[in-house]
Amino acid sequence: MLIVMKRDSTPEEIQAVVDKIESLGMKAQPIPGGMRTSICVLFNKGAVDPSPFLSMPGVRDAIVVSKPYKLVSRETSPQNTVIEVGKVRIGGEKLTVIAGPCAVESHERLLQTAKAVKSAGADILRGGAFKPRTSPYSFQGLGEEGLKLLARVREETGLPFVSEAVDHEVCDLVEEYADMIQIGARNMQNYSLLRRAGRAGKPILLKRGMSATYEEWLMAAEYIMAEGNREVVLCERGVRTFADHLRNTLDLSVVPFVRRITHLPVLVDPSHGGGNRDLVLPLTYGAVGVGAQGLIIEVHHDPERALSDGPQSLFPEQFADLMKRLPKLVEAIRT
Amino acid sequence: MLIVMKRDSTPEEIQAVVDKIESLGMKAQPIPGGMRTSICVLFNKGAVDPSPFLSMPGVRDAIVVSKPYKLVSRETSPQNTVIEVGKVRIGGEKLTVIAGPCAVESHERLLQTAKAVKSAGADILRGGAFKPRTSPYSFQGLGEEGLKLLARVREETGLPFVSEAVDHEVCDLVEEYADMIQIGARNMQNYSLLRRAGRAGKPILLKRGMSATYEEWLMAAEYIMAEGNREVVLCERGVRTFADHLRNTLDLSVVPFVRRITHLPVLVDPSHGGGNRDLVLPLTYGAVGVGAQGLIIEVHHDPERALSDGPQSLFPEQFADLMKRLPKLVEAIRT
Amino acid sequence: MLIVMKRDSTPEEIQAVVDKIESLGMKAQPIPGGMRTSICVLFNKGAVDPSPFLSMPGVRDAIVVSKPYKLVSRETSPQNTVIEVGKVRIGGEKLTVIAGPCAVESHERLLQTAKAVKSAGADILRGGAFKPRTSPYSFQGLGEEGLKLLARVREETGLPFVSEAVDHEVCDLVEEYADMIQIGARNMQNYSLLRRAGRAGKPILLKRGMSATYEEWLMAAEYIMAEGNREVVLCERGVRTFADHLRNTLDLSVVPFVRRITHLPVLVDPSHGGGNRDLVLPLTYGAVGVGAQGLIIEVHHDPERALSDGPQSLFPEQFADLMKRLPKLVEAIRT
Amino acid sequence: MLIVMKRDSTPEEIQAVVDKIESLGMKAQPIPGGMRTSICVLFNKGAVDPSPFLSMPGVRDAIVVSKPYKLVSRETSPQNTVIEVGKVRIGGEKLTVIAGPCAVESHERLLQTAKAVKSAGADILRGGAFKPRTSPYSFQGLGEEGLKLLARVREETGLPFVSEAVDHEVCDLVEEYADMIQIGARNMQNYSLLRRAGRAGKPILLKRGMSATYEEWLMAAEYIMAEGNREVVLCERGVRTFADHLRNTLDLSVVPFVRRITHLPVLVDPSHGGGNRDLVLPLTYGAVGVGAQGLIIEVHHDPERALSDGPQSLFPEQFADLMKRLPKLVEAIRT
Repeated sequence: MLIVMKRDSTPEEIQAVVDKIESLGMKAQPIPGGMRTSICVLFNKGAVDPSPFLSMPGVRDAIVVSKPYKLVSRETSPQNTVIEVGKVRIGGEKLTVIAGPCAVESHERLLQTAKAVKSAGADILRGGAFKPRTSPYSFQGLGEEGLKLLARVREETGLPFVSEAVDHEVCDLVEEYADMIQIGARNMQNYSLLRRAGRAGKPILLKRGMSATYEEWLMAAEYIMAEGNREVVLCERGVRTFADHLRNTLDLSVVPFVRRITHLPVLVDPSHGGGNRDLVLPLTYGAVGVGAQGLIIEVHHDPERALSDGPQSLFPEQFADLMKRLPKLVEAIRT
Repeated sequence: MLIVMKRDSTPEEIQAVVDKIESLGMKAQPIPGGMRTSICVLFNKGAVDPSPFLSMPGVRDAIVVSKPYKLVSRETSPQNTVIEVGKVRIGGEKLTVIAGPCAVESHERLLQTAKAVKSAGADILRGGAFKPRTSPYSFQGLGEEGLKLLARVREETGLPFVSEAVDHEVCDLVEEYADMIQIGARNMQNYSLLRRAGRAGKPILLKRGMSATYEEWLMAAEYIMAEGNREVVLCERGVRTFADHLRNTLDLSVVPFVRRITHLPVLVDPSHGGGNRDLVLPLTYGAVGVGAQGLIIEVHHDPERALSDGPQSLFPEQFADLMKRLPKLVEAIRT
Repeated sequence: MLIVMKRDSTPEEIQAVVDKIESLGMKAQPIPGGMRTSICVLFNKGAVDPSPFLSMPGVRDAIVVSKPYKLVSRETSPQNTVIEVGKVRIGGEKLTVIAGPCAVESHERLLQTAKAVKSAGADILRGGAFKPRTSPYSFQGLGEEGLKLLARVREETGLPFVSEAVDHEVCDLVEEYADMIQIGARNMQNYSLLRRAGRAGKPILLKRGMSATYEEWLMAAEYIMAEGNREVVLCERGVRTFADHLRNTLDLSVVPFVRRITHLPVLVDPSHGGGNRDLVLPLTYGAVGVGAQGLIIEVHHDPERALSDGPQSLFPEQFADLMKRLPKLVEAIRT
Repeated sequence: MLIVMKRDSTPEEIQAVVDKIESLGMKAQPIPGGMRTSICVLFNKGAVDPSPFLSMPGVRDAIVVSKPYKLVSRETSPQNTVIEVGKVRIGGEKLTVIAGPCAVESHERLLQTAKAVKSAGADILRGGAFKPRTSPYSFQGLGEEGLKLLARVREETGLPFVSEAVDHEVCDLVEEYADMIQIGARNMQNYSLLRRAGRAGKPILLKRGMSATYEEWLMAAEYIMAEGNREVVLCERGVRTFADHLRNTLDLSVVPFVRRITHLPVLVDPSHGGGNRDLVLPLTYGAVGVGAQGLIIEVHHDPERALSDGPQSLFPEQFADLMKRLPKLVEAIRT
């Protein structure tokens, strides 16, 4: 941290800041400049809280320098982390594609969609059994029955699957049935659930919160890793801004930015950002363009009859066409 | 809902929309206009999902008219709801003031602050026992021990208290010990917790999420009420915007706006928006100015030694001065 | 500025940064810490551009410490600046109230409103002659004729007036006729117009841009002051956020914040934030609560027939009632 | 427009709304529903202002249905518009690439960069002569001298060029020298300048404002077109959000969205969004992925010595590599 003193701060005020820093077990180094003195805080462990200094007399500013994350950082683990979900690798050379319906609706429907995405080349099946919905009066998912259907379809198709956990109890179930546990955007700062995910024996797919800075997102991953689960996959799915043309503003710029900071794999969900299947396709190409290591896409064999998110679900033939284009896209941008 | 057709939509496309509406059990009334046809959806129960229509041929737009909330609406209950916390009334004529430390730290410290806020005129004590923190490495609160200290101080001072629940298990504890259960901003869309709160026998203090629209905030209250708990108090605490001068942008304008729509009481927390005690005072006056029915303010008898949020906690003498001004402020703006 | 090196930066990389700093005429002081080295930049004049450093090998971050504003800062002029508009003082002990119609519509209508606001106690008349409108097909104001009407009504009532300048040519006219020149939110970063305002012989009312940080707002004032015009009044009028309940989110928190940094007076426009007269009243009380030194309020003697912004214009009797309450409000919050 | 009445509105209130609509020369059609009456407004020309209705007794909401834009809309001109800048076509089959330095610095430097971008395949040269800068103390560009250098380099390389106009006077100069006139993000709602651009005899490159909704952006284009200049090219360059990892959040999702609504070409500027050359490359691939019809990219032959925006300028060899990849990218996503 750097403490910036006011121009007219007194030597006593400067000394008081130095004393405060040292009373906290760190080292203070005052740097007299042309117009004002700044004081460097050294030998701190992790980020220092600026607030106790901001209210001291003579202090103009306290600027945080150290970053609060450790385990997620490339400074700790320089190499890309590769995470295995069943036999599928996320974060390696190949783009990973997760696809399936928004919500599990019935065995037959799920199986049809699963077969379609598998034959098009998808790696992992997605499907919601416990759905977080804005309204208490909307369809909330099939619950454990949905997880059982996903497991049955895994048997039938060989596709591992990911499903969302919305609380501890659901997390127990998802951990039991699924190959990967999703923490949704609305729960990205549900620290109790993050800690539970950190004790799970399955990889976690952590969506970015609707108004999470990149640092808060990484700190959510840090919560999970701090409990011992090193298998975290990040997923951008759109943030909330003033822009009202879509439900969310897909922040594709965050992908290359966080990939420089963290060794964890970063995916993109173009479906929730798009809200409309005609926009999902270009957003998918854009996501690959910015360097996403994988995608999670809603596909439904009969989207017009889907119980939720129908209009943003791709038709199977659209998805198949998309899958054919992806290798060419990747080739165009990689050396 | 109103379905707006494209200028060049065909009679067949219009008929298909009409058929779709009627297949969903509602009535369709096409309105031919000068340039295009619109189709009104009638006899719907609650808000209609526009998505199935948006992807139909010939449709330009589908505009939601009905609001998704029912129980929270003044159209359902025109009179202001008054909620009782112990003997304290929230939402009545008098401004309700909740005050206390950010986190419970020890019996002695809590008692000192509680006595100070009580003698200044506060109605309810606040204090966090389970703290949601951005970093897993920060102080997370005393846990159940904190709740016990709050209960002991209630015995000693007569002040009822509110404390935050961060998951089901904590909610059980808070319900047992506290007079009111707080749902924090980060959990405003933790629907599982909202439903649990809806089954609690204590009033709920529901903070607005960091990027929640007013409608999502009211829908979170609707979740609680739909489970049977009618005692919900709303609390604005700052939202996330591009403005970077404070941790959050306190959205005081939402207070008079939502008070026109809902019968539930609306409070303001000026401490989390301010982040600095010199800003908490003007923000408090501003909150009363816009019509908040109560305040929740962080006060600490020794803020420079507080374990969290020290710089935004008022000194007891600042709080006492503030409390003297509030009745004059209220008098100035009410008839 | 503080340059933060990566953990594994080499002595050569550190030296290269030191050389770069010194080649720019500043002094470099490396600070070896526990885990990494930081380099302080000293004897810089004003803020240093971090970008040349960010792309140097071994650099992790370059943190700006100096603030880019000078003339607007309390560090330069510690006392509150008081600005005179005719005989009216803005920034002194008394709250200044500017009131009038959104747009000048006719002599008779303007005179009626002007008489009403004067008898209620307003200090300055407002009225738009050149209106910035989102649509080219909307009413754009009466132009120079509107300024002549404002000048005539000034004769008749004694009220000085402020009107908006939208380009150089209009600025010439407004400077000629008006007592104060308004720069609107959409032109806050129209630097050419700001420089023109800086050469005007009249005080400037500078509205905050719709997505301006406090620093950009102050830098816009700095542009005006750097050209020689020291008479700048700042005005918050609402910013753009995700919140969609009103046209803009009135950022009342910025008022006490910038008042600590700048010596210039800070007003609030509650009308454009509110968008609806029932919300303008509470927002006005809120603005006074947070410490605004004045207000600019739309009043129309017959708002239902106003050519623009009718629904947010107060009725004269509402305005008169408001004016009676303001002194009590101010008394309640000042010592 | 659709006027939604309150549940308990009276027949007299409904009639008053009908009368008001008809007094404005439009037709009213009340639609009694299950719970409340709505009133459709028909035969309106363009968007109707909802505000006069919102304050009438018994009215709950007034929902705008018509869009305010006409000339920019695909409903008016269904085919993609192709705009010619010299011999270069924007909006046709081929991706158009505009490249060059942020600011013109000297003849020699400009020529070097121009030759480099030309040999890599760029179509149009960019270069700022009048720079809008946040601080009055920053380098403001070479002025007319810069335009002369751009014209000289056009002679030498054959590349047409675009440069920014910041006010009427500068617009006269840019129109005289350049092949295309840029309106920058900060001036997107400078309506006086937009009208001037509408009277120019050169195509306009209209950047999206930092907090402009898609509709405001299209309305800015409508201002230009309404004055007679049909040659408008839109350019997304990043918007302002809470996300603080980059200077701006590049809103790539707006590209496919507005392309469905407007016939005008849509480009992307990945340089201002990225702020760092390592991020410019992936953002460029992302922009092509979402369907941008062209790019405007900062390239500098010696970015470390650039007078502005050096760190976000590509090295010539990076740009050349990028240009080789673009045709493969386009091929991968187009049929």
